[in-house]
Amino acid sequence: MSNSIKLAILGLGTVGTGVINLINDNLNELKRRSGRDIIITEVGTRRHRDDIDPNIVQNSDLMATAASDNVDIVVEVIGGTTLAKDVIMHAIKNGKHVVTANKALLAEHGNEIFAFAEEHNVHVAYEAAVAGGIPIIKVMREALAANKIDWLAGIINGTGNFIMTEMRDKGRPFADVLSEAQELGYAEADPTFDVEGIDAAHKLALLASIAFGIPLQFDKVYCEGITGITLQDVNYAEELGYRIKHLGFAVRRDGQGNDEASGIELRVHPTLIPQDALLANVNGVKNAVLVNSHPLGQTLYCGDGAGAGATASAVMADVMDLVRVLGSKDSHDESNSNQNNHGHHVPHLAFIPEQLSDTPILRAEQMITGYYLRVHAYDSPGVLADITRILSDAGINIDAILQKPAHKVGQVPVIILTLPVVESQMNLAIEKIEKLETITDKVVRIRLDELA
Amino acid sequence: MSNSIKLAILGLGTVGTGVINLINDNLNELKRRSGRDIIITEVGTRRHRDDIDPNIVQNSDLMATAASDNVDIVVEVIGGTTLAKDVIMHAIKNGKHVVTANKALLAEHGNEIFAFAEEHNVHVAYEAAVAGGIPIIKVMREALAANKIDWLAGIINGTGNFIMTEMRDKGRPFADVLSEAQELGYAEADPTFDVEGIDAAHKLALLASIAFGIPLQFDKVYCEGITGITLQDVNYAEELGYRIKHLGFAVRRDGQGNDEASGIELRVHPTLIPQDALLANVNGVKNAVLVNSHPLGQTLYCGDGAGAGATASAVMADVMDLVRVLGSKDSHDESNSNQNNHGHHVPHLAFIPEQLSDTPILRAEQMITGYYLRVHAYDSPGVLADITRILSDAGINIDAILQKPAHKVGQVPVIILTLPVVESQMNLAIEKIEKLETITDKVVRIRLDELA
Repeated sequence: MSNSIKLAILGLGTVGTGVINLINDNLNELKRRSGRDIIITEVGTRRHRDDIDPNIVQNSDLMATAASDNVDIVVEVIGGTTLAKDVIMHAIKNGKHVVTANKALLAEHGNEIFAFAEEHNVHVAYEAAVAGGIPIIKVMREALAANKIDWLAGIINGTGNFIMTEMRDKGRPFADVLSEAQELGYAEADPTFDVEGIDAAHKLALLASIAFGIPLQFDKVYCEGITGITLQDVNYAEELGYRIKHLGFAVRRDGQGNDEASGIELRVHPTLIPQDALLANVNGVKNAVLVNSHPLGQTLYCGDGAGAGATASAVMADVMDLVRVLGSKDSHDESNSNQNNHGHHVPHLAFIPEQLSDTPILRAEQMITGYYLRVHAYDSPGVLADITRILSDAGINIDAILQKPAHKVGQVPVIILTLPVVESQMNLAIEKIEKLETITDKVVRIRLDELA
Repeated sequence: MSNSIKLAILGLGTVGTGVINLINDNLNELKRRSGRDIIITEVGTRRHRDDIDPNIVQNSDLMATAASDNVDIVVEVIGGTTLAKDVIMHAIKNGKHVVTANKALLAEHGNEIFAFAEEHNVHVAYEAAVAGGIPIIKVMREALAANKIDWLAGIINGTGNFIMTEMRDKGRPFADVLSEAQELGYAEADPTFDVEGIDAAHKLALLASIAFGIPLQFDKVYCEGITGITLQDVNYAEELGYRIKHLGFAVRRDGQGNDEASGIELRVHPTLIPQDALLANVNGVKNAVLVNSHPLGQTLYCGDGAGAGATASAVMADVMDLVRVLGSKDSHDESNSNQNNHGHHVPHLAFIPEQLSDTPILRAEQMITGYYLRVHAYDSPGVLADITRILSDAGINIDAILQKPAHKVGQVPVIILTLPVVESQMNLAIEKIEKLETITDKVVRIRLDELA
């Protein structure tokens, strides 16, 4: 049997082509590091591609490639949650290790897929599924393995970050920047997944599981997009020393404080963060994840969250890990060396399956964050007193107030920043504020986090 | 044989105590992730400590502990390059895996130590040796394993970064901040290793080896500290949109450009970098490493570079990796499962030993960087023309000039930023400039990098 590692690439879109290019470009680096030849033996593609090395088998039957005797590792870069799932399950059943970049599939069906992989003693690696080329999965599963993770906050959708960056830097409105992002190919024709936060929620579900050792629970992620963010709020935030970023948060609450429920917050939403935080200075399509853990403290990981090169880098890092799993360069029986490795691998969700916990995911009303409030009121005496009294009665502490001159006749926006408060309390306070006769519009609220 | 992993901690200073505290604090997290009990069976300490769990053997004979039958993994946190080397070599000889935080030892004797470990089929893990809690060793050896690394730039000495940050933020002179750093315990009583760049050079030697697959060559690192940096230069840099950081650079040069030699630059020096680069905003004692690789592009890793918690986190991440190497939780014969893993491990220097290359390390005169020059001249007509002509004749392109009003009678500093140039060219140009009759002082030069 050959000493080489045989890959199948299923799907020849941007990422699949990126993987082929990476292997061509860095063949020597791969061999110098692994001591093995890593070769693509098959590709699964519906349409025959003339630009592919003729030594590579092109197969339009993806299920057949996933089970081929000529393949050690199956790289799934088809996307979607139907065919992709079928080929991955089929590959697992046939004893193949799998590498996938498919965040939606794993966030929604990962528990089933990982259990099936455990059963068949193979690995499903997914570095490319979260934050593209940033090795956040490896970092959290391995490098932070001795830490207790308290919370993480991540810019995990490049399109959303591009839009927020352009709005702030150039004073352009949301819709305008979104159009440009679509022209540049950053955003899909249907941008819902990006701008409504669903893509970020998929990634957050994965990050939270490996942070806390809980099953994947995408359906419990609180999800708010950036479609409601206006230039007005971007500018007020700046004036107060903050910047609005679209962030995913996973936070462990121990139920220690007043009104604090015990459980885990999973939430994706626009957030005011301090201007001088590194995370606030991660711009354009870059992604970044900030992890706070004990005893390490805060560490930040930043890089390209998408694109052919970054994604291929993550896919091939997974392949390089699997090369070691597949046995030494002296090994001539890979199926055997495979068995020897039972138990040596990093658990799929960082914690061993029987140790995943049923810690509850908190409901939105139980979550705790600071707030930015924009309140529009008639400029009548006593309105500020009314608002601050309502907040004070609800036990909400005000951190800053900004009252700007009237921009319509007789109407002034009041900007209020609060300290962290349980959301249900804030809901009640806002309801009362909106009932004041002097209040002319719905209260605009955006969450705020000091990242401390 | 027990299912538990038995550690020896050699040295009970800040880091050794930090490791003990981490294991106590996070016992449950460690077990949930690894499926194993990780217990400290022995500590090597000269003085008996009453505050240590009485179940842990305290041994003043460190060589005996390093070879003890009651130990799977030896954690060396003694420091220094004499006793530490002896106990590590002894542990290796006795088939123990080793975890060390000792950058000086590895930078100076790593080639010998790693070869000895290969010979005895054990691993020497050293995540804690570079950038403390930032998992830069794992990231570069594993997560970037499919990339060709072009260059890296790192803030890899916390004391130096603290000093540079305070000078800029508070306008305090070097000596003043150094005293404070010593009072705060950031800097040693003898701060030479930190402020002269030697500590950073140790770390850079390690990073360069795993970036490019070259043997450790600490003796070839060009090393310049921060003792010569004045507030005047800090302020001029800011005015021109740059910030001075003390950085370690490892750069691969392909010899493509004009006058460009082929080889690797290893250099540690103060550097002007753009103010808006994330790296320029990594402040205080934080460390960060920016890696530029193909096809991934730039990724940044930031966190605490020192301290008990951060270092213990890195030490224990290595232990968690070794737990997997030591076999499955079902394995009852660790020495056997050990043998099965020959060849499965990540190579010590990222590339397999027979693939380490003899790419030359460039001499200082061959290195290529931009420059900040501060030239003091009598305010006579034609002086600027003289200087710019000398630079132009040497093929040096000027990027910016700042001429400030005279601060002594008749004398004005001229600040010049240049594009990248081979150092030998710059040496010649400066020699000529200093010979001009209008020049009153030595030319001050600080390297400059756009990090592009």
